[in-house]
Amino acid sequence: MKLYVLPPSPRALKVIALKNHLRLDCEMRIVDLGKDEHLTPEYIAMNPNKKMPVLEDDGYVLWESNAILFYLASKRAQSGVWPSHPRHQADVLRWLAWESAHWDAESCGMVGFEKVSKAVLRLGPPDPAFIARGEQNFCRFAADHLAASLSQRENFGDDACRLI
Amino acid sequence: MKLYVLPPSPRALKVIALKNHLRLDCEMRIVDLGKDEHLTPEYIAMNPNKKMPVLEDDGYVLWESNAILFYLASKRAQSGVWPSHPRHQADVLRWLAWESAHWDAESCGMVGFEKVSKAVLRLGPPDPAFIARGEQNFCRFAADHLAASLSQRENFGDDACRLI
Repeated sequence: MKLYVLPPSPRALKVIALKNHLRLDCEMRIVDLGKDEHLTPEYIAMNPNKKMPVLEDDGYVLWESNAILFYLASKRAQSGVWPSHPRHQADVLRWLAWESAHWDAESCGMVGFEKVSKAVLRLGPPDPAFIARGEQNFCRFAADHLAASLSQRENFGDDACRLI
Repeated sequence: MKLYVLPPSPRALKVIALKNHLRLDCEMRIVDLGKDEHLTPEYIAMNPNKKMPVLEDDGYVLWESNAILFYLASKRAQSGVWPSHPRHQADVLRWLAWESAHWDAESCGMVGFEKVSKAVLRLGPPDPAFIARGEQNFCRFAADHLAASLSQRENFGDDACRLI
């Protein structure tokens, strides 16, 4: 397998972390977005979204970091990272969807795009309105789940409760 | 099962459509966001994100529309909506992730929030900068995949090619 990534993007780090956790044999290829390596015809043929990470496994090409997490987990079924019961599987997908749409796209990713990606990709100065919206969403989604966690703290181990 | 939804939100319509397609027995409960029905303590206890849809199945509560799609499909394994091969499963998850993060949150959802949700939720006037960003992302993600589809049209049936 080959992973096309650009650390320290969290979308890269999460697939690298799972690859390491599962001890999967996987070659790493750096995609330097600052050098437009995601805009070459060869790269766009792999991922029309012009984003990373991308996984290639014996001719099968997969993009979207959370789909890659699932696929890596499927390579080590015995690890239990992808559970066997549909309700537990739905729980994994619930949090992957939350992370992708709300935590990343609407919160951290919105701020990160303005403060980091725009500089790397030479897309102009950060827009304060988008940083403010992202920070507002960050507080909203963090607060909502902190409140829910506190009300359900019997579901957490002692260490998690101390952190809260 | 019970589905808490507010049509015509596409996040509601997609779970209703799959429920109907799979002929699942499922009671529908309307969550009127305009009347703050998503902000009651009882609703927030089900979904701390204060969003819909929510699925309740014999005490199991699930939120995130795409996780609900998976769970409904798991109820009818023989339908093949959730395929059996890990690569095909990853393909489903790839497009659900793309729809959730890029098509919804960064494109259609960003425009819809400004033009529709803000009015329903009484959150002030639409912000033209967010509408412009959402429309820019819409064109980007639509164009990227139209181009990819055209270059791989042998993968499409005649009807799909005529549409393109």
